[in-house]
Amino acid sequence: MSLRTAPATPYLQVDEQRVRRNLRRVHAAAAERGVAVRPHVKTHKSPELARWQVEEGARGITVATVGEAEVFVAAGFDDVLVAYPVFLDEARLTRVRALAERARIVLGVDSTDGARRAAPLAGTGVEVMVELDSGQHRTGVRAAEAAAVAGAAYDAGLPLAGVFTFPGHSYGPGVAGDVARAEAETLAAAATALADAGLACPVRSGGSTPSLAATLAAGAPAVDELRPGVYLLGDAQQWELGHAQPDDLALVCVATVVSHAGGRLVLDAGSKVLGADRAPYATGFGRLPDHPDARVVQLSEHHAVVDLAGAVLPPVGSRIAVAPNHVCAAVNLADELWVDGTPLPVEARGRNT
Amino acid sequence: MSLRTAPATPYLQVDEQRVRRNLRRVHAAAAERGVAVRPHVKTHKSPELARWQVEEGARGITVATVGEAEVFVAAGFDDVLVAYPVFLDEARLTRVRALAERARIVLGVDSTDGARRAAPLAGTGVEVMVELDSGQHRTGVRAAEAAAVAGAAYDAGLPLAGVFTFPGHSYGPGVAGDVARAEAETLAAAATALADAGLACPVRSGGSTPSLAATLAAGAPAVDELRPGVYLLGDAQQWELGHAQPDDLALVCVATVVSHAGGRLVLDAGSKVLGADRAPYATGFGRLPDHPDARVVQLSEHHAVVDLAGAVLPPVGSRIAVAPNHVCAAVNLADELWVDGTPLPVEARGRNT
Repeated sequence: MSLRTAPATPYLQVDEQRVRRNLRRVHAAAAERGVAVRPHVKTHKSPELARWQVEEGARGITVATVGEAEVFVAAGFDDVLVAYPVFLDEARLTRVRALAERARIVLGVDSTDGARRAAPLAGTGVEVMVELDSGQHRTGVRAAEAAAVAGAAYDAGLPLAGVFTFPGHSYGPGVAGDVARAEAETLAAAATALADAGLACPVRSGGSTPSLAATLAAGAPAVDELRPGVYLLGDAQQWELGHAQPDDLALVCVATVVSHAGGRLVLDAGSKVLGADRAPYATGFGRLPDHPDARVVQLSEHHAVVDLAGAVLPPVGSRIAVAPNHVCAAVNLADELWVDGTPLPVEARGRNT
Repeated sequence: MSLRTAPATPYLQVDEQRVRRNLRRVHAAAAERGVAVRPHVKTHKSPELARWQVEEGARGITVATVGEAEVFVAAGFDDVLVAYPVFLDEARLTRVRALAERARIVLGVDSTDGARRAAPLAGTGVEVMVELDSGQHRTGVRAAEAAAVAGAAYDAGLPLAGVFTFPGHSYGPGVAGDVARAEAETLAAAATALADAGLACPVRSGGSTPSLAATLAAGAPAVDELRPGVYLLGDAQQWELGHAQPDDLALVCVATVVSHAGGRLVLDAGSKVLGADRAPYATGFGRLPDHPDARVVQLSEHHAVVDLAGAVLPPVGSRIAVAPNHVCAAVNLADELWVDGTPLPVEARGRNT
């Protein structure tokens, strides 16, 4: 990736060609299996990048918060899944009602109480989708409990859009196949439980970037819809898990060498631009696509200390690309992404509510 | 800390009374020893909180970037140390010249080349301060090298403000005393080296929140100036290191219980509001001041899964305070801090350049 001389470092640079190549690869594989892609836009938080996804065949979008939904609906997106068990207090009910006047809104629920709290939205067009736990053990009910939650939604007068799960335990080495199987079994069991209860299950929605290929490679489609987030940009985690190659990485932080103190290579990219995410399997705090043997061995707010594995230190003042460990975290720290020398605002940055 | 019903969760809440109590305690201890406090405002990034620090006796401020300096100088602060080996390309030289017209600006340098690159600033009033490595092994030169760097600055026509170090290796259990000793020895050795070279060392500047007490408790003052950042707010790291008690924590994230799925307590505060920092000694991804036995065992972008150590789960919809592991990271994710029901903009958020 060429590093143009552009803004002051550190900044995040996006390569549109690589983004579109990543999108086409995944969307084509999904289309071949008859599976829709509803990307999770929390990764890039930018209506412009979501438009690229739609241009390349995505159908609807996924968000994590009502605040993100507000940004994307204002930008013209009209089919939004909030894949989260949103707590519907009066203020959020009002906000969701306003969204439903302009777009199809689907809300996650993962309890009978949650479904009942959505009752004031009956008749607004808002639909619910039951969240399942396929093994990550975060939110979501077991497949056997799905019918009770869906029944509560039905009783509350809310259309059921289907069931969804996030197989987030795919973030580990060598687990993608097992995780994709657990995802498929959980979605199938929930659909069966709903059918047994006389409830239709229009959509089984799944997907995470590390498990995508495994989900699509399995026999009959296990999902009707995939909701990957990171796949369009990639990051050091995907690289280290084997789900992206350095040439696939479409977002890097451009950093400057600021010090050789003590023979160390120190860059001006710290946790305030890269994020501090470090999974147990990560070999450092980010990776250098142009120096695959290097490791970011120490990270503070404005410093990355890099072990270059014996290579000659680039001079102070050089610019170096760093792939953050977790691209969603890096984007959420930035006010803008630089695309071909042009700043693109991260419009939904910090929309956590 | 009382949780007012205020904005939608998650949000960051600051308790001004606790902030002022924390400030008075540290500033009084420093004043007793004849040591000045020049707080690092990267922690709160808010001119209003910096004003509280000045009202409580701080003298000047410390920042990490030229971008932060720009925000604080625009807000009226007139004595700013950029405690970082800033790479001075043409664009930054221009920005620093503009700052120097309105404030006293001191720039960190940690190499003879770095001092020479500052030469175009001779005559602008900009001063330099030599950064020392007292054991963190990030940036900074050894004490023995300080005279060479200071000499290069002198030759470049730049006034020398002194020497500084950040003893960041204080972030570990049981190390504060040793770290404070290393800090004192490094600063003393550098001052001696400068004197031997016929150069004055007006200020020896040190300090980190974990080592503050140890630095002040030692015999003769080892420092002329301290630059703590976190001390005014506190966080889970300081609590776990024994440098703050739960009642000292002046910033919390107010979160809502969103799920009891699988008997788990899940809050809507994830890494996009708390940050993902997790030091090796941390017992989780944040702490709950009102539930000291609880641990945040899993953190994703919008979920904190909490092990309540057997306690009854608070109902879905309850609001719970979470102390982030690293308060500087949490503040840098927020557009505003809520102080007594009023939003205070985090004006220098994201000013990384």
